[in-house]
Amino acid sequence: MKFYDCQTAPSPRRVRMFIAEKGIDVPVVQVDLRNGEQLGEAFRKINPRCTVPVLELDDGTCLNDTLAICHYLESVFPEPNLMGRDGREQALVMNWHEQVLTEGYLAGADALRNFSKGFENRALTGPGNFKQIPELAERGKRRLEEFMEMLDGHLAKASYIVLDRFTMADIGAFVCADFATWVKLPVRERWPNIRRWFDEIAQRPSASV
Amino acid sequence: MKFYDCQTAPSPRRVRMFIAEKGIDVPVVQVDLRNGEQLGEAFRKINPRCTVPVLELDDGTCLNDTLAICHYLESVFPEPNLMGRDGREQALVMNWHEQVLTEGYLAGADALRNFSKGFENRALTGPGNFKQIPELAERGKRRLEEFMEMLDGHLAKASYIVLDRFTMADIGAFVCADFATWVKLPVRERWPNIRRWFDEIAQRPSASV
Repeated sequence: MKFYDCQTAPSPRRVRMFIAEKGIDVPVVQVDLRNGEQLGEAFRKINPRCTVPVLELDDGTCLNDTLAICHYLESVFPEPNLMGRDGREQALVMNWHEQVLTEGYLAGADALRNFSKGFENRALTGPGNFKQIPELAERGKRRLEEFMEMLDGHLAKASYIVLDRFTMADIGAFVCADFATWVKLPVRERWPNIRRWFDEIAQRPSASV
Repeated sequence: MKFYDCQTAPSPRRVRMFIAEKGIDVPVVQVDLRNGEQLGEAFRKINPRCTVPVLELDDGTCLNDTLAICHYLESVFPEPNLMGRDGREQALVMNWHEQVLTEGYLAGADALRNFSKGFENRALTGPGNFKQIPELAERGKRRLEEFMEMLDGHLAKASYIVLDRFTMADIGAFVCADFATWVKLPVRERWPNIRRWFDEIAQRPSASV
């Protein structure tokens, strides 16, 4: 196996944390997103979507979706369990992962990529160039705020995102909450229940890899 | 179990097809999206995200993500297999499902909801009101076109979306291709490989439920 990563990007960080929690050793290739390596011919052969993370399996199959990558890794390395122990638990983890993706990450990406000068004409990941839409930056920030507000209410009544233990859903939401500070949301300062949960996860060794 | 559906909407149609392919009997509740029933107090208790599909399990747990719902149903009713037989196959189906969601559905929803008069101030699903962004409608249509172009190239070399057999990935992409005609993309006319695959799936009894 081979894991295509980028040390500075939020999306592959979820897989990096997952691998660290599993305590497994997967060879890593750093992809230089800052200099556009993901758009080059060589990387397009690995992932035509021009994104990281990518997990290349031993048979050459390449997975480029975080949930799919983690599901595969869990099937090969079942312990410690991070994706749920039965169909119901797995469905709950997957459901939270999707909500964090669509309401958290995609909102944050809208906020960042439609605002920051560094993303001019790169308002979306992928091979195509898309110009920035300033209204979409504002909307993204508002959506991300609403998502954090909801998450704070949820964590007022729960120790972890789901299943009363640390799972992939916590990894996804933790990286998302950290990413939200990139668009100047004062996450720890503003939402006390997120802070309590966030600070606990930040102490896990996997949060620093 | 109980399945909250809306006969006219694309998202729950995927679950409807999935249930029909499984040949199982799940009690259905129609939610009247046209008259805003999803935003009412009663439905918010079932799904605070104000969306369908929702699958309510016998213990009261509510799932509101299509992939999570199908994963759960497959765990209870494993045959016919629609989500993959091992970790690798399942990961491939999930990866395609995510790509269809982010590059297909979300693009199509951007195109439709930021353009159609019927969605004024409802540019996004969910409890909050968001005004339309005309530039986002254009961008959504372009993205959806690029996605269909990619899908057509893929289906030039493959009978099904993944695994050389009919899976959940085909259900997702089929409903998405049909949805694309809502924003006036002439899918069958323009992309011959999609047409061949689409017309085959359209003959399955599950496509008409």
